[in-house]
Amino acid sequence: VRTFRLVLEYDGTDFDGWQVQPKGRRTVQGCLLAALDRVGGRDLRVTGAGRTDAGVHAEGQVASVRADTRLGAYGLQRALNGVLPRDVAVLRARVAPDAFDARRDALSKRYRYDLWNGATRSPLRARRSLWVPRPLDLDAMRRAARVLIGTHDFACLQAAGSSVKSTLRALSRVDVAGEVGGAVRLEVEGSGFLRHMVRNAVGTLIEVGHGRRAPESIGALLATRDRSLAGPTAPARGLTLAVVRYPAESIEKPGS
Amino acid sequence: VRTFRLVLEYDGTDFDGWQVQPKGRRTVQGCLLAALDRVGGRDLRVTGAGRTDAGVHAEGQVASVRADTRLGAYGLQRALNGVLPRDVAVLRARVAPDAFDARRDALSKRYRYDLWNGATRSPLRARRSLWVPRPLDLDAMRRAARVLIGTHDFACLQAAGSSVKSTLRALSRVDVAGEVGGAVRLEVEGSGFLRHMVRNAVGTLIEVGHGRRAPESIGALLATRDRSLAGPTAPARGLTLAVVRYPAESIEKPGS
Repeated sequence: VRTFRLVLEYDGTDFDGWQVQPKGRRTVQGCLLAALDRVGGRDLRVTGAGRTDAGVHAEGQVASVRADTRLGAYGLQRALNGVLPRDVAVLRARVAPDAFDARRDALSKRYRYDLWNGATRSPLRARRSLWVPRPLDLDAMRRAARVLIGTHDFACLQAAGSSVKSTLRALSRVDVAGEVGGAVRLEVEGSGFLRHMVRNAVGTLIEVGHGRRAPESIGALLATRDRSLAGPTAPARGLTLAVVRYPAESIEKPGS
Repeated sequence: VRTFRLVLEYDGTDFDGWQVQPKGRRTVQGCLLAALDRVGGRDLRVTGAGRTDAGVHAEGQVASVRADTRLGAYGLQRALNGVLPRDVAVLRARVAPDAFDARRDALSKRYRYDLWNGATRSPLRARRSLWVPRPLDLDAMRRAARVLIGTHDFACLQAAGSSVKSTLRALSRVDVAGEVGGAVRLEVEGSGFLRHMVRNAVGTLIEVGHGRRAPESIGALLATRDRSLAGPTAPARGLTLAVVRYPAESIEKPGS
């Protein structure tokens, strides 16, 4: 039995998210388990760094895979890519230390959210971005984004009904790039995220971009810890899990 | 009855091409006619600048539309975008001279072909590009591309079984941009194209990129006029009709 680290890309449009669902819906984890089974892996255990929701994409999801297989990392990658459906692929595979756990060991995750700020909806961008027809004030959004950086209680950006012990999280980066009337890209990096936290932050930043909320009000919003006072949840299709980072010792197999 | 010039974007994946089909398959022209009918247009005539094949995308297809309607150009655009399916949209609409014909009046068309030259297939690029896993020699492709520029008999790049009077066509631009191992983009501009000409040119240039055909051999290939000696037809999904250009007098309504 060995442990592998897989980096995955998927188009989330036709998936019911990462996590295997009870009623046998189509999930990325489910497809990966089925593919591992088909290529002869036994005693499988698959953990994803981020449990992406239905419709969320990934170009750098990381999975730890425990499997009893004779395949090496490269052979496993090739075999999996041969049997996985066309909307998911293994970009890289490495043998990892036995104890590697993609979720627990992650240092940070970076998400991207794509907006299309053109006056007309864009069919070629429809699967990957949210159409925001009214011009956005990107400078105001940047000022608001800066307030989110650092360690804060993000309870107001947590999905209603969640129950986690602490809603304290640390964001190291919240960037707004692009141009008014064109493609706008938000990047958010942090050590951990609450449920829907990125999508709720995006929904709130869009309100700032439309002048319906002042950049200076974001600090007070965080202080309220009240979900009902933040913006709406931006739809899943604009969100992509871009990169997951790990400390070298958790992913490098000693002597390999 | 007025004539409009519409600029259209569509994701060609789920269309059986531009042109209305006898058996009622889903086509862009068919969707546009149905949408025009729904917004109250009568006596409709719709002509597209390029009759894109099944699976080919557009971000600058131009259609001339003759319709009996009370709507102005902007009203027509908004009304159409409200009823068109999400994989097609009207980017711009203008009133045009009565005689404007999007196909006959076109000065030039520019097509783009997207390749993904990464070692692993990319699910997020799968709908819009052709995966070419082996590294491409882009310099060799550029040398071959240069030979295609100018007025030539392109019979060897015409779909087998086509019958047109002349296979002489003029290309003003054949560019190869991008990077080996990453995204590679080919752009081809010309006053007119034979059936499958761009896709056959791309299939031939890929063979050059893989060293299976010398850049210097392209002149001799053209001289053979033999389709069976050129490369395979690259799949539709990598192709996008990017821009159609017109002489000012054909599209500008006098006094408007």
